[in-house]
Amino acid sequence: MSELRRDPIVGRWVIIAKNRADRPQELLDGATTRGSGDACPFCEGNEHLTTNEIAACRRPGTKRDGPGWRVRVVPNKFPALEIDGKLNERSVGMYDVLPGLGAHEVIVESPRHVTGTTQLTIDNLREVLWIYRDRLLDLQKDRRLVYGMIFKNVGAAAGASLEHTHSQLIATPIVPISVTEEIEGSRAFYGSRGRCVFCNMVEQELALARRIVYDSPDFVAFCPFAARFPFETWIVPTAHNSHYESLSRGESQGLARVLSRVLGKIESALDRPAYNYIVHTAPFDTPALAHYHWHIEIIPRVTKIAGFEWGTGFYINPVPPEEAAASMRDIELTPQDP
Amino acid sequence: MSELRRDPIVGRWVIIAKNRADRPQELLDGATTRGSGDACPFCEGNEHLTTNEIAACRRPGTKRDGPGWRVRVVPNKFPALEIDGKLNERSVGMYDVLPGLGAHEVIVESPRHVTGTTQLTIDNLREVLWIYRDRLLDLQKDRRLVYGMIFKNVGAAAGASLEHTHSQLIATPIVPISVTEEIEGSRAFYGSRGRCVFCNMVEQELALARRIVYDSPDFVAFCPFAARFPFETWIVPTAHNSHYESLSRGESQGLARVLSRVLGKIESALDRPAYNYIVHTAPFDTPALAHYHWHIEIIPRVTKIAGFEWGTGFYINPVPPEEAAASMRDIELTPQDP
Repeated sequence: MSELRRDPIVGRWVIIAKNRADRPQELLDGATTRGSGDACPFCEGNEHLTTNEIAACRRPGTKRDGPGWRVRVVPNKFPALEIDGKLNERSVGMYDVLPGLGAHEVIVESPRHVTGTTQLTIDNLREVLWIYRDRLLDLQKDRRLVYGMIFKNVGAAAGASLEHTHSQLIATPIVPISVTEEIEGSRAFYGSRGRCVFCNMVEQELALARRIVYDSPDFVAFCPFAARFPFETWIVPTAHNSHYESLSRGESQGLARVLSRVLGKIESALDRPAYNYIVHTAPFDTPALAHYHWHIEIIPRVTKIAGFEWGTGFYINPVPPEEAAASMRDIELTPQDP
Repeated sequence: MSELRRDPIVGRWVIIAKNRADRPQELLDGATTRGSGDACPFCEGNEHLTTNEIAACRRPGTKRDGPGWRVRVVPNKFPALEIDGKLNERSVGMYDVLPGLGAHEVIVESPRHVTGTTQLTIDNLREVLWIYRDRLLDLQKDRRLVYGMIFKNVGAAAGASLEHTHSQLIATPIVPISVTEEIEGSRAFYGSRGRCVFCNMVEQELALARRIVYDSPDFVAFCPFAARFPFETWIVPTAHNSHYESLSRGESQGLARVLSRVLGKIESALDRPAYNYIVHTAPFDTPALAHYHWHIEIIPRVTKIAGFEWGTGFYINPVPPEEAAASMRDIELTPQDP
């Protein structure tokens, strides 16, 4: 089993996951995703190539682990964390260790072999976003788990090892350090200014309109003022809410539309780059927070991260977010289903 | 001029450096370093291809910006920050901005066209490490600057754009967030346990001997318990010291030897991977700190960072540090000059 180890200086937890080294191409730099050829485990009809289905959106009358699904959730075949075991913390001298307990799931977003979110219909994408919510609600029943991280890697440069479009969910018995930092930072802002930093940001971005990428009633997409990466874009709900899983059905439709449009603009501006998106949300065990606001961060992978950034968390971004946003605003997308 | 922008949520500063986009290949992923062919600006005899020399180790009687040097420091031709200007902070609504003021220097480590630290003699490397110290001491006279970050990128995958072996120094008017986090974290450890976390770590690693890569009287190299990356290795001085610039001449010799050996082991174990190293040291304006301890972190670039890591600072490392250290300990290097 893998281990969760805590850095004694900054308190960052790391997964030491030996079995992940068995993944094809794991240690190769510049590895490509597996081709669209024979036996993609995520294609409809190949359900026997994955581990057993956890959840799915299916046609009535079709069977678990068989065809007939539109979105399908399965355990990761090379999980960083495993769900069985007891959560006993122990110390090794000055170090803290937890067993590598948690969930690592794959959300297969289409039965067809498509390679990007923008190739999904809005209805399909809405079901993907809805199943994120279902999985978070289900996993938080497990009292050993305190956080659910949803993310998507597209392209080899973004860490994807299979090209069939999919996202992932990792649920952990600890809260990741950058989540803690975001929550503490937004708490401090709330303490000094009396309001949610994200609500404030949405208001200011809409008023200024220089960094807006796409605007809609329920969600605003903009390049953040202190963007770390070229074309980094955040999608923030206009209504205050700390937990992704409080998403309504209506909002899931609006989010699908905005996410698809924004990714379409990024793909068009940067010629289909590799990218990651990450859902930032509050921990399972917190109540609704007035100071924190869930959102999605999209990070195109167009610059290499150099030594400076790694050592310091201090990024050099060669493209001002105002320019990135302006060029994305200018892109006309071909009309899609509503 | 570039700008320093502060993220209002977590307080991270980002350099928005428009001129860096003019660098050759800046926005290309997987770009290679420029060849060893004609007109490498860092080779002896090509001094006219760089900006004017800031410092150098030179043969007596040779002239600034001419041949005859062994180590040479020049301003970065595409600086992320510039040294001229006034440090006036301003606010743009809820956001804080500083002018992109600071120093960005390149330390050319050899007059010969060599591509790695391990190809330098120990004496040569000692002079490189000593000039790091000289530059920090010189830059901290500028009261606008509070931190000096020294780092080295080797290989295109690590962000290097020129292959001639060199390191860089960026001095900033703010303290990078991860430095603040390290200093605060080590202060908390000191507060609760009454000793330096790094001293404690060195003692424990030496006693256990499972993660040691190389041991010497003045410096110990080990893979940290909570290593984020495969073969991540830290070099820590055995004597407590918070500031790199307090390095003694004797220590610079010992550090050169350990750094060269450890990089040799990494190159041998991973077949000359791209890597970064970063000197972690205390800010200019702090006195000697009992709770902080300068050190060097070496990060081979053998895994791609996937979405999960980017979103969370929560890393999955497929190679336990005990295994990485054991395989590096086993590597016999060919004897070098002492």
